[in-house]
Amino acid sequence: MLPGLMMDYPLTMTHFLLRARTFFGGREVVSRNPDGSLHRYTYRDYYVRTEKLAKALLRLGVRPGDRVATLAWNHYRHLEAYYAVPGIGAVLHTLNLRLHHTELSYIASHAEDSVIIVDRSLLPLLSQFRKDVRSLRHVIVMSDDGDVEGGDLDYEALLGAESPGFDWPPLDERSAALMCYTSGTTGAPKGVLYSHRSTALHTMMLCMVDTKGICEADAVMPVVPMFHANAWGMAHAAVGVGANLVFPGPDLSPGSVLDLMASERVTFAAAVPTVWLGVLSLLDENPGRWDLSAIRMISVGGAAAPPAMIEGFDTRHGIHIRHTWGMTETNPLATISRIKSGVSATGSDAIATRAKQGFAVPFVEQRHVDDSGTVLPWDGKQMGELQVRGPWVASSYYESPEGADKFTSDGWFRTGDVVTIDEHGYVLITDRAKDVIKSGGEWISTQALENAIMAHPSVLEAAVFAAEHEKWGERPVAAVVLKEGKAATKGDLAAHLEGRFEKWWLPDDYLFIDQIPRTSTGKFKKLDLRARYGKHLMAPKSP
Amino acid sequence: MLPGLMMDYPLTMTHFLLRARTFFGGREVVSRNPDGSLHRYTYRDYYVRTEKLAKALLRLGVRPGDRVATLAWNHYRHLEAYYAVPGIGAVLHTLNLRLHHTELSYIASHAEDSVIIVDRSLLPLLSQFRKDVRSLRHVIVMSDDGDVEGGDLDYEALLGAESPGFDWPPLDERSAALMCYTSGTTGAPKGVLYSHRSTALHTMMLCMVDTKGICEADAVMPVVPMFHANAWGMAHAAVGVGANLVFPGPDLSPGSVLDLMASERVTFAAAVPTVWLGVLSLLDENPGRWDLSAIRMISVGGAAAPPAMIEGFDTRHGIHIRHTWGMTETNPLATISRIKSGVSATGSDAIATRAKQGFAVPFVEQRHVDDSGTVLPWDGKQMGELQVRGPWVASSYYESPEGADKFTSDGWFRTGDVVTIDEHGYVLITDRAKDVIKSGGEWISTQALENAIMAHPSVLEAAVFAAEHEKWGERPVAAVVLKEGKAATKGDLAAHLEGRFEKWWLPDDYLFIDQIPRTSTGKFKKLDLRARYGKHLMAPKSP
Repeated sequence: MLPGLMMDYPLTMTHFLLRARTFFGGREVVSRNPDGSLHRYTYRDYYVRTEKLAKALLRLGVRPGDRVATLAWNHYRHLEAYYAVPGIGAVLHTLNLRLHHTELSYIASHAEDSVIIVDRSLLPLLSQFRKDVRSLRHVIVMSDDGDVEGGDLDYEALLGAESPGFDWPPLDERSAALMCYTSGTTGAPKGVLYSHRSTALHTMMLCMVDTKGICEADAVMPVVPMFHANAWGMAHAAVGVGANLVFPGPDLSPGSVLDLMASERVTFAAAVPTVWLGVLSLLDENPGRWDLSAIRMISVGGAAAPPAMIEGFDTRHGIHIRHTWGMTETNPLATISRIKSGVSATGSDAIATRAKQGFAVPFVEQRHVDDSGTVLPWDGKQMGELQVRGPWVASSYYESPEGADKFTSDGWFRTGDVVTIDEHGYVLITDRAKDVIKSGGEWISTQALENAIMAHPSVLEAAVFAAEHEKWGERPVAAVVLKEGKAATKGDLAAHLEGRFEKWWLPDDYLFIDQIPRTSTGKFKKLDLRARYGKHLMAPKSP
Repeated sequence: MLPGLMMDYPLTMTHFLLRARTFFGGREVVSRNPDGSLHRYTYRDYYVRTEKLAKALLRLGVRPGDRVATLAWNHYRHLEAYYAVPGIGAVLHTLNLRLHHTELSYIASHAEDSVIIVDRSLLPLLSQFRKDVRSLRHVIVMSDDGDVEGGDLDYEALLGAESPGFDWPPLDERSAALMCYTSGTTGAPKGVLYSHRSTALHTMMLCMVDTKGICEADAVMPVVPMFHANAWGMAHAAVGVGANLVFPGPDLSPGSVLDLMASERVTFAAAVPTVWLGVLSLLDENPGRWDLSAIRMISVGGAAAPPAMIEGFDTRHGIHIRHTWGMTETNPLATISRIKSGVSATGSDAIATRAKQGFAVPFVEQRHVDDSGTVLPWDGKQMGELQVRGPWVASSYYESPEGADKFTSDGWFRTGDVVTIDEHGYVLITDRAKDVIKSGGEWISTQALENAIMAHPSVLEAAVFAAEHEKWGERPVAAVVLKEGKAATKGDLAAHLEGRFEKWWLPDDYLFIDQIPRTSTGKFKKLDLRARYGKHLMAPKSP
C-alpha cells in the first residue's frame, strides 16, 4: 500500500467543543429547571464551566478510560459532563433513570463506574443501588443550593474551586468516549462503548443536509433523554456547529414541550412517537395557540411513527416530520426516511414511504438476511433480519461474550429487526426477530397485524404474539385491549381483518385483556404474553 | 487507553460510489461535449461504466499505488476515472492542462505516472512531453470515434471489452487515492498525495449545511476544472449524495456557463472570480435573459472575491455567493466566509465580512504566526502567516524533501499567506508571504495598496512589490498599467492614496508598465517584478 501524505489528525469530540468556544461563543444553551424557570447561558460560559469540570474530575483522580456515570435529566450541567468527561479521556456512561434500581445496580457495577454525577432530584433512586456499586468512589450532586449530605460532593462547589484555562489532552480517535447500555428485553443489559471517532463521524453526518441538517442557525431541542443513545447525537451536533440548544428538563408533557418550542423559537426537535402523538393531539385541540413558525423539521425515532401522525403534522399544522431508525448499538442514527428522487413525493404514497424506516445514512450500509444467512433481494416482500455496518456501529459489547452472536463473521451487526427492503432501498420493519412468528416455515409480521387490528374503532391497543401450534409450529394470537365503553367480539375482529392479509396470516384467536405488558421504554413485552398465553392453542379452549 | 468497541469501518471513496449506485441510480450526469451538444446518463449507467474502467485498468496491469494520470476537461469520462482509479487502490493524478509542456513533463515524470488517460483534443499537448515520461506504459484516449493512433488505447474499446459486475477491493482508509501538484511560483512543483480518508471526510464536510450544503436535490456544476485541487471536492460530493452533476466541458465563457445553468436548472456552481466576474457582467448587460431561479448558491474561491462582485450578484441578481479559501494542500476547502451569529448581516459590513476568506470549516484549525513563530491574537490587525491543520491537510509533499519547511515542528501547514484574523475568527489574506514587504521590521500589505491603487479611475491594474532599500531593507514600489486612453502621473496616484494608509506604507515610487507578468493560473508574478525592478530604489533614478 502507498500511504497518503495527509495529517494524522484525530477525529475527537474535543474538536467540536473547541469550535463552540472559538467560533460560536455567543450562542445559547437554554434549560428548563424543575420549577419551570429557565436557565440560559452562552457557549462561552458553557466552555469555561466544562473546562472546570474537566479539571475537577482530574483532581478527583479520574484517569483515562475510567467510567464516569450520569444519572440526570436534560439540562446544561448534563451537557457539561457530555464533553468534559470524554475530553479528559474518560468515558461518559449515561444511566437510564427509568430503569428499575436492580437493573441500574447491575449496569453501574458491570461498567465499574467510579464516579456518578446525579441530579439532586434523583438521589432517592441512586440511594437504592449506590451501595452495590463497589467501584464507586465519588458521587457528585447537581443542584442549585449546595446542600449535600454524607461524603457526597457538590457539583457547583467543585467547579467553583477551579480556575479557567485548560489544555485538553491529545486523544486517540479510537479511544472510548461514551457508554450506553441496551435495555434489552432478553438477557442482561449490554454495554456499547462508543469511540471518539464514531461520535465525531456521527456528529458530522447529522449536519449533512439530507440527514438532519443541523446548523448554526438552528435552535435544537432534544426531547429525547440524554441517557437514551446519546440523545440521538443532537447535543453533540448542536455544540459542534454552534446551534442554540433548548433542554426541556424533566417535564415532557405536550404543553410544556410546546410552550418551550414556541418561546425559544425552536427550529428542530426530536422525540419518540408517544411525545409527538401527545403534541399533535394538543395542537389539534388548540389550533393557533402556539407560534411554531420557526420549526423547520421535527424528528421521530425510537419506535415506528404511525402514518396518521406524519400526515397529521403535515396537513393540519404544516410541520414536517423526518422519521429515523437506529439503536443504541448504532450511535444511534442508521436510516432516515426521506423522500428521494424517483419516489412519489405526494399523497398517501409519500406518507407510506415516510412511515418506513428509510434508507441508510452516509457511511452506513444495510442488508437483510434470511434464516439460512442468505442475503435477500430488495423486492419489498421478502422478510429477513436487518443487518448494518459502518464506523458508528458497535463491533462487540463491553465485557459481554454472550453478546457475540449479534455480530456476523463477515462484519455486520444483527439488529434483531425483521424487515423488508423495497427496490428503492427503503427498509420497513415488520417485527423484532424475537417477536416474529414462524408458521409452517414462513414468517408472519406481527406489526402489520397489530396496525390493522388497532385501526378497528373499538380497539385501544393490540399485540400479536406467537403461540405454539402442533402442526404449524407457531401461529399468531392477538391480545386485545378494548377502548372504554366499546365492544367487539372475536368474530368482529376476524371480519375486520379478512381480505387484508393472506388467510394463513390471520390470528388463530383473540384474547381480550386489560392491559398489554410493556418494557420500561414503552415497548410491548411479548415475551410476557408468550409466557402467559403461549400454550393457548395447545390446551382445550376455555369457554 | 481503553479502546472503543466500534466497527473498524474504513472511510473510503468507494463507499460514495456504491451509494450513488444503490440509492441514487436515477440521478443524472450531464456533460457538454466540445461541439456544444449534451451527453447525459444516470448514475446507474455511470456506475456500470466505472466498474468496467476499473476492470480494464486492472487488465492493463495497474496495481495498488500506481499513478494513473488524467489530462482532461470536465466531463463524464473524467468522472469515471475519478472513482475507478482510487477504487482499485491506484492513485488518480490529475494533470493541469494549462501548464507548459516542460512542467507537465517534470510532473508526470516525478509522479511516475504509468497510465495517462487523455482527451483526444489534448493529444497535441501530450505529444509534447509523453516521450520524457519513462514510467509511462499506456496512453488511453477518450473520444467518441475510436480513431486511435500508434500504440494508444481507445477508452471506449477498453470499456466495451469488459462485462459489468465487479467486487471493489477492501482498502485501507489511509492509502493514497488522489494526487495533485501545486503550481508553485517558486521552486519545482510539489505533489500532494490525498488519502481515501482525507477525501471521504472532505466530501462529508461539503454536505454540511454551514459549508456548501451539497445534497441530493442539487444540480451541481463544477466550473472549476477537475484538474484543479479535485474540482474543490464537488464531483466527489455530488456522487456521494446523488446530486445531479453538470459538466461544462472546455467552453467556460460566461454565455456558455449561463446557458447551462439555466437549461439544467443548476442549483450550485463553483468557479474562480474571473469566471464569475464575466458572468456578472453578462447578466448586467442582459437582465432577465437567463432563468436562474433554481440557483441556491454559487461558490467562489481560488483567489479573493472582490466585494463589488459579491454585492453585485446579491443586489442586482438575487444570487448568493459563498466565498471560500483553500489550497491544493488542503484538499482544498479550509475556510468559508459565511455570516455567522454576532456579526452584522446587512449592508456594507456584511459584504466586507463575506469578502474575507472566512473561518475554518469543521475539523480544520487555523492560527497565524509572526516571523519569530509567536502565535498572534485575533485582533483584526496583526499580520502573520496563516497556518492550518486538519485531517485533509497535507503532512508532507510526495518525494520532495525540499518542501519540508512548509510544515511546522508542532504539526501545522504553513500556507504562505499573510493574514489578519479578527475577533470573530474571520481570516483576511493581506499578502502571499513571499510578496509581503518588510520595511524597517514592519510588514506592509501589498494587496491593500493594490486594491486602493486599482480604485483610481485611470488604473487598469497594479502590483506592489518589494524593492531593496539601503535604510529600511525593503520599500514598496507600485507597477501600474493604465487603462487605454487614460492618463495619471505619479503625483496623481500618490495623492489618491494619501490619508488611506499610514504614511510609511505608501509606495516610494510608481512605475508605469505595459503589462504585469502573470503565472499560468493568472496570479501576479511579483518575483519577476522584483528581478527586474528590485534595485530601482538603489540606483540613481532615470529622468
